[in-house]
Amino acid sequence: MEKKKTINQLTDLGKRIVKEVENKEIPKIDIPSRNISNIVLDSKYMCYVIGDKIITRAANNVRHVKKMAQLLKVAASSKSLLKENRHVTKREVYYISESWGEKLKFDEQRDSDNVIEDIEAILERPKEDINIMPDNRGSIYGDLTITFKTPKGRKKTVNCRDTPDGQAIGPRISESEIKKCGADKVIVIETGGMYNRLMEEGGDKKFNALLVHSAGQAPRAVRRMVKRLNDELNLPVYIFTDGDPWGLHIAMVIMSGSAKSAHVNKRLATPKAQWLGVTASDIKEHKLRTDKFKDVDLKRIKELLKDPRYKGDKRLVNELKLWKKLGKKTEQQALQRYGLDYVVNKYLPKKFEELGTSK
Amino acid sequence: MEKKKTINQLTDLGKRIVKEVENKEIPKIDIPSRNISNIVLDSKYMCYVIGDKIITRAANNVRHVKKMAQLLKVAASSKSLLKENRHVTKREVYYISESWGEKLKFDEQRDSDNVIEDIEAILERPKEDINIMPDNRGSIYGDLTITFKTPKGRKKTVNCRDTPDGQAIGPRISESEIKKCGADKVIVIETGGMYNRLMEEGGDKKFNALLVHSAGQAPRAVRRMVKRLNDELNLPVYIFTDGDPWGLHIAMVIMSGSAKSAHVNKRLATPKAQWLGVTASDIKEHKLRTDKFKDVDLKRIKELLKDPRYKGDKRLVNELKLWKKLGKKTEQQALQRYGLDYVVNKYLPKKFEELGTSK
Repeated sequence: MEKKKTINQLTDLGKRIVKEVENKEIPKIDIPSRNISNIVLDSKYMCYVIGDKIITRAANNVRHVKKMAQLLKVAASSKSLLKENRHVTKREVYYISESWGEKLKFDEQRDSDNVIEDIEAILERPKEDINIMPDNRGSIYGDLTITFKTPKGRKKTVNCRDTPDGQAIGPRISESEIKKCGADKVIVIETGGMYNRLMEEGGDKKFNALLVHSAGQAPRAVRRMVKRLNDELNLPVYIFTDGDPWGLHIAMVIMSGSAKSAHVNKRLATPKAQWLGVTASDIKEHKLRTDKFKDVDLKRIKELLKDPRYKGDKRLVNELKLWKKLGKKTEQQALQRYGLDYVVNKYLPKKFEELGTSK
Repeated sequence: MEKKKTINQLTDLGKRIVKEVENKEIPKIDIPSRNISNIVLDSKYMCYVIGDKIITRAANNVRHVKKMAQLLKVAASSKSLLKENRHVTKREVYYISESWGEKLKFDEQRDSDNVIEDIEAILERPKEDINIMPDNRGSIYGDLTITFKTPKGRKKTVNCRDTPDGQAIGPRISESEIKKCGADKVIVIETGGMYNRLMEEGGDKKFNALLVHSAGQAPRAVRRMVKRLNDELNLPVYIFTDGDPWGLHIAMVIMSGSAKSAHVNKRLATPKAQWLGVTASDIKEHKLRTDKFKDVDLKRIKELLKDPRYKGDKRLVNELKLWKKLGKKTEQQALQRYGLDYVVNKYLPKKFEELGTSK
């Protein structure tokens, strides 16, 4: 299991250092560089990954020794967390260091965040795998049966349709065992209003879909869960956002990760996910109410047109260009002008047809 | 039931207008004024409420007639929503008006928000009662059994402990029927990290508590749910925030509502709730790591010291003054310096003793 593998990786890291000390060698740690110069675009996955450059921290370098010790302390804490079935936030890691004493404690959270990213890069695993948990935001609704471990270690099974407003997505759902799934696709939804709309109009049943609320920019817990649904169940993923460049980029981060998480993108990104809309073309096709672009919107469009992740995708480039031409944006809720059920009766069926349900 | 009462209120509103038309009188609507001059502090509830001033909108006033028609349209939509068991967001109300034609539709969301608040003031009910739902944020975990209606109208029963990371708090959980509760208190928690901490350290069992994640400033759905737990089950409510004036004010809004929602505060506020901490005194008592105040923090303290809702509460005023003196703030996570279980083994037991478990 992944958890055991992670524990073994952490144990090996410690053992190597102990061995070097015993052999009277200088202890050192190799860390894949996360410097911008070492971030490259993986053309197969269309996501940023890190290259081959390695940074070596050695205990005979005064400038390295504290960071090295801190890294080993965080790694050791994480091993305990994994064994104890506990999860902490990045912020907690920073505060926990208080107990290590004045010499070792982190001066700022930037330092502890950095060490956490170093460990991610060494293990090639997101911090979630060492039980450092991301923001608790977003939820899931639909016919998915999972078995999870309660904080006390008991196993429980729930169906994600037996919930009034969705299951909150936190560490335990992300790590749950997927038992059964009656759905054949996933719809990730940016706004709470549209998430509720699809629930109330029976979108989950009509489209045989799991509904995932990303609550704006999808937190990593959501991205991780979506990836699992795509990887393990082979479900196609559709991302349904507001009709502006920010919405499109929410989709892009789910599909390809971010430059900041280049060292773990392959474990977080769902390259086969598709952006469904609201597209710039939808504004014309559905005669949607719009707001004029502000300067920041236009600036964002220009940035995205230069971004290599978009360049390879004709459809996305065309939509960006159309937005630029229209100078207008819209929102998911704008579809409601034709009635509350328009989105499930007209808009989405047409979209699924256009995009295909392959994958 | 509340729902029936609301439908009756809306029906009456419409009937009165129809009758005036039939009697060849000029149709008019009386709306309690939400103007700042009509907002007063209720000294019993220690929350802002609106006074006796009334604004009358009459159909023979050219400047009133559109707004009056819009109000009636929104009221009629809400009646349908209640009957259909559907919920919309404020944003959706704005877009739905598109279908009313060019003459009637709202020009900006500010206008539709205003009409919604007028209806709230007329009915003396929060918009949630007319199925206009707030932000879908926050979640609940603990031994609470509720029966809710699925979007398709089927009844289902769940226990809020049978969930991996908490039940998302949306419209259906807020309107659920409370069947059984094994807990004897409620702890509302500002940060996701501390919410998880209390779950993992068994805080719900140890303190026999329901845990509610407010996700920062508590959205109205959370405030409404907390009020119900206090009103219907008579559970004392403790609010656990970061140790800064912003955290304290998160607690104040749960206790007394906001000036903006003066016209419905009595339906949203939980005046008997108590702020638990992290207090300014805790910084000294637990030797917590701090950050220096920024200018905005100090400014906020000064504002709060002038706020009449604080003035009546010696403990809160003293804490504000102590913060000002220290010039430092802290966070919930700072308690982790003594180990992950410090918060449940030391900090909270002492707090509950200090505050008492009275209501």
